[in-house]
Amino acid sequence: MRKLNIAIIGLGNIGSYLFKYLRENKNILTEKNNCVPIVKFVSVKNKKRKRNISIKKIQWLNNYIDATKNKNVDLIVELIGGAEGPAKKLVFNALKNKKHVVTANKALIAKYGDQLSRIAEKNKVNLEFEASVCGGVPIIRSLKEGLIANKISKIHGIFNGTSNYILSSMDKENKNFNEVLLKAKELGYAETNPSADLNGDDVSSKLKILSSLCFNSFLNNNIYVEGIKDIDKSDIDNANKLGYKIKLLGFAELIDNKIYQRVHPALIKKDSYVAGIDGVLNAVIVDGKPIGQSTIQGEGAGPAATTSALISDISSILRGNIKFPFSLSSKKRKKLKFENINERFFSAYFRFEVLDKPGVLSNITNVFSKNKTSIKRLIQNPNKNKKISSVIVITHDSKDKNLNKILKEISKKNYIKRKPKLIRIDD
Amino acid sequence: MRKLNIAIIGLGNIGSYLFKYLRENKNILTEKNNCVPIVKFVSVKNKKRKRNISIKKIQWLNNYIDATKNKNVDLIVELIGGAEGPAKKLVFNALKNKKHVVTANKALIAKYGDQLSRIAEKNKVNLEFEASVCGGVPIIRSLKEGLIANKISKIHGIFNGTSNYILSSMDKENKNFNEVLLKAKELGYAETNPSADLNGDDVSSKLKILSSLCFNSFLNNNIYVEGIKDIDKSDIDNANKLGYKIKLLGFAELIDNKIYQRVHPALIKKDSYVAGIDGVLNAVIVDGKPIGQSTIQGEGAGPAATTSALISDISSILRGNIKFPFSLSSKKRKKLKFENINERFFSAYFRFEVLDKPGVLSNITNVFSKNKTSIKRLIQNPNKNKKISSVIVITHDSKDKNLNKILKEISKKNYIKRKPKLIRIDD
Repeated sequence: MRKLNIAIIGLGNIGSYLFKYLRENKNILTEKNNCVPIVKFVSVKNKKRKRNISIKKIQWLNNYIDATKNKNVDLIVELIGGAEGPAKKLVFNALKNKKHVVTANKALIAKYGDQLSRIAEKNKVNLEFEASVCGGVPIIRSLKEGLIANKISKIHGIFNGTSNYILSSMDKENKNFNEVLLKAKELGYAETNPSADLNGDDVSSKLKILSSLCFNSFLNNNIYVEGIKDIDKSDIDNANKLGYKIKLLGFAELIDNKIYQRVHPALIKKDSYVAGIDGVLNAVIVDGKPIGQSTIQGEGAGPAATTSALISDISSILRGNIKFPFSLSSKKRKKLKFENINERFFSAYFRFEVLDKPGVLSNITNVFSKNKTSIKRLIQNPNKNKKISSVIVITHDSKDKNLNKILKEISKKNYIKRKPKLIRIDD
Repeated sequence: MRKLNIAIIGLGNIGSYLFKYLRENKNILTEKNNCVPIVKFVSVKNKKRKRNISIKKIQWLNNYIDATKNKNVDLIVELIGGAEGPAKKLVFNALKNKKHVVTANKALIAKYGDQLSRIAEKNKVNLEFEASVCGGVPIIRSLKEGLIANKISKIHGIFNGTSNYILSSMDKENKNFNEVLLKAKELGYAETNPSADLNGDDVSSKLKILSSLCFNSFLNNNIYVEGIKDIDKSDIDNANKLGYKIKLLGFAELIDNKIYQRVHPALIKKDSYVAGIDGVLNAVIVDGKPIGQSTIQGEGAGPAATTSALISDISSILRGNIKFPFSLSSKKRKKLKFENINERFFSAYFRFEVLDKPGVLSNITNVFSKNKTSIKRLIQNPNKNKKISSVIVITHDSKDKNLNKILKEISKKNYIKRKPKLIRIDD
C-alpha cells in the first residue's frame, strides 16, 4: 500500500482538530484513497500550550522549516496563517523542495498564489487551498472539478460568517453592533481582533481566489472593499421597513471580458434566497453555462468545517490527483483588465440625520439632482430628540461615483448631525 | 500530450448537446486536464433523426457494442437509458473490456451498480455517474471528494424537478394537477410518459445511489416510495392555510446503523429552506460530521445540466483520477440492515370528504383514538355541495402503520365520498 508522510505546521484549534481527525479516521481515509496518511511531524510556536492531543516525541520538529528539507515528508499542511513571515517562508520552501502543500491561508494565497502556483506546476506537486475559502462549502473543488464544464460569468454570495452573524443578530435580537460583536467574541464566532472580518478584507481575499478560478485569470488586486463597521441598528430597521435585509456580500463578475470585483454591505429583498442565510452560514452562488445557477451553502469557518476542507485536499493528494492549483496552467491563465465600480450603476439607500429646520430637505434633494441621481423614495421621521430628523432616501439607478459625491457633499453640510450612510441596493 | 478516445453511445438531446460541447470546448478541457478528449465514435439507434450536429463518416459505429471491443476507444459514454437491454449490455461489456464508463443512467446504476463496480475495480477503470443524480448539482463528486472527510448521517431534499415544478405551479398558479402536467409537457419539463417522475421511482433510484455513497454500503432496495399522483389542489390549499408547502422529498438516514430510505410527498413549514425551492430546481442537504449541514442547489435535469455533470466525470478520467465507483472498494462496502417505515413516527395530515350527517365526526375521531393516534387539530369545512364536508385532521406523532390503518379503515366507511388522502408532515 502506498503511504504519504504529512507534516502539520501550526497546532492551534484547527491544527489540533486535524491532528485528531487524521488519527481517528486513518483507516477509512486509507480505504477511500488507496494510500495511508501518516502524520510524521508536527511543529508549533508554543510547545507548552495545552492541546488535549497526545503527540509522540519523535513527531516534534524543533524548527518548522526543517519539514521542507526532510526526505520523510511528502505533504506539508500550513496552518500558521498570515500572508508574510513564517507561513510565506514555509510554503515557498516546501514547493521549491517538491513537497505538496495544503493550506487554509487565504491571505497568503490571495497575495502570492500566482507565484506559488508557478513553482508547484514546475515541480509537479499539488498546492491545495480549499480550506482558505468557506471551509464547509466545498466551492473550490466544485469549481475545479464538479463544475469544470462551465464558463462562469459571476460568483457571489455571503463569504464571511462573522459579519453575517453580526448583521443577522442585530436584526433578529434587536441589538446594536457593539453588543452583538461582544456576544460573537464570547461564542467564538469573532476573533479577539476581528478587523479583517469586519472591514471586508477577509471576503476580499476569498473573492480574489475565487474569481481567478472562475475566470481562468491571474489574481487581480483591483477590488472595491467596504466592511460592516458603520452599519447602524437604524439601518437594519429601516431596511426591514422597506422590505430588505442588509448582508455583507462579495461579487465577482466578468463584464466585457473585464474582471469586476467588489465587497460591500447591500440591501437585498427580504424574500430572496440570500436574505434567508442567517448566522455563521456562508452561501456561494455560481452563474455559468451550461449549468445556469448553482448554489452551495454551509458553515464557513471553525475547526470542524475547516478540517473537512483540509481533508478533501489531503485526500486528493493521497489519490495522486495532480492538478493545476488554479485549474489552468500558469502559461494559460489570462491577465484580465478590470472594471471600476465608479462607473457602475446602483440603486442606493442613504441615511441622513439632520437638524429639523426649514430648507434642509430642499437642500438635500438639490444635491441629488445636481449629481444626476433621481430619488425613488424619501422618508422623513422625527427622532426622539425632536430637533433632529432622520431622512432616508432610496434612489433610482445612478453611477456609483455620483452616489459617493452626494454622500461627501451632504456630509459637510452644517445641518448634518451625524456621519451619514450610503448602502447599495442589490436587486 | 496524452489523449483519450471517447465513444458516445446514444445521441438524443443529451448526447447531441454533449457532442457539440466537446467539440466547442476541446481546448479548454485539454488545458485544464492535461489530456486531449477526442470523440472517436458515436452510435445511435436511429441514424436518420435530425440532430443539427455534423458527424464525420468515420465517426459512425454501425453496431454500438463494437465500441466495447475497439482498441481505439478508452472511454464509453452511455446515453441509451434503461436498466436493461442495450444499456446494460454496453456498460457490462465496456467495463469487462477495460474501458472507462461515464453514464447518466440512474436506473442502471441503482440496479446493477454493485456488480458493475466490482468489474470496474478489478479492471482498474473508472465508472462515473455524476449525471445520474441531479445533473446541475455536483452532489456525487462532492460526496466522494469535497465532503470526503465526513461521516454522513442523513441526506435529503428535492431530487425530481418535474414533480417539484408540478407542485409549485399548482400552488403559485392556482391550477389543478392535470392542467399543470399538461403545461409541464409543453415546456419539456415532463416526458411524454412521466410515470417514473410522478410515482417516485426516479427519486428512488437517485436516493439508492446517494445512500450507498453516504453510508459506504451496498445498494439497498428497501425503500418506501410514494409519488405525487394523488395530491389534490385542495391539499395544496389546505397546507397553505396551515402554514405548510407540499414537496416531494427523498430521505436516506442511518439509524442505529440501519439504512432508512423513503420517498414521499410531505408537508413542510412554509418558511423552511426547502419550501423555497421552486420550479425545476433540485436541492440536496447533507448532514455529517465534522461539517454540520451542507446544501447544494441547482437545476436537476435537461441537456445543459446533464452535460455539465458528464463533463466533470470525463474530466476526472482525463486527469487519470482513478477512484472506486462508490467511494470505497467493494471489499470494504458494508451490507447494512434496513429500518422499515412502518415502525417510524410521523405527524400527519389527513383529508376526508364526508357526508355531512350526525355521527360522522365522532366515528372518525373514534378510529384515530382506536389506532393510538391523537389529534392535534381538526378542521371541518362545508363544501360548495352542501351535503358534503371536508374534514382535515392534523395528528401528533404516531406510528406510520397506525396512520395507514386509519386511512384504510376510514376509506371503507359509507360516509366517505371520495378517496381520502394521508400526507406525512416533516418538521
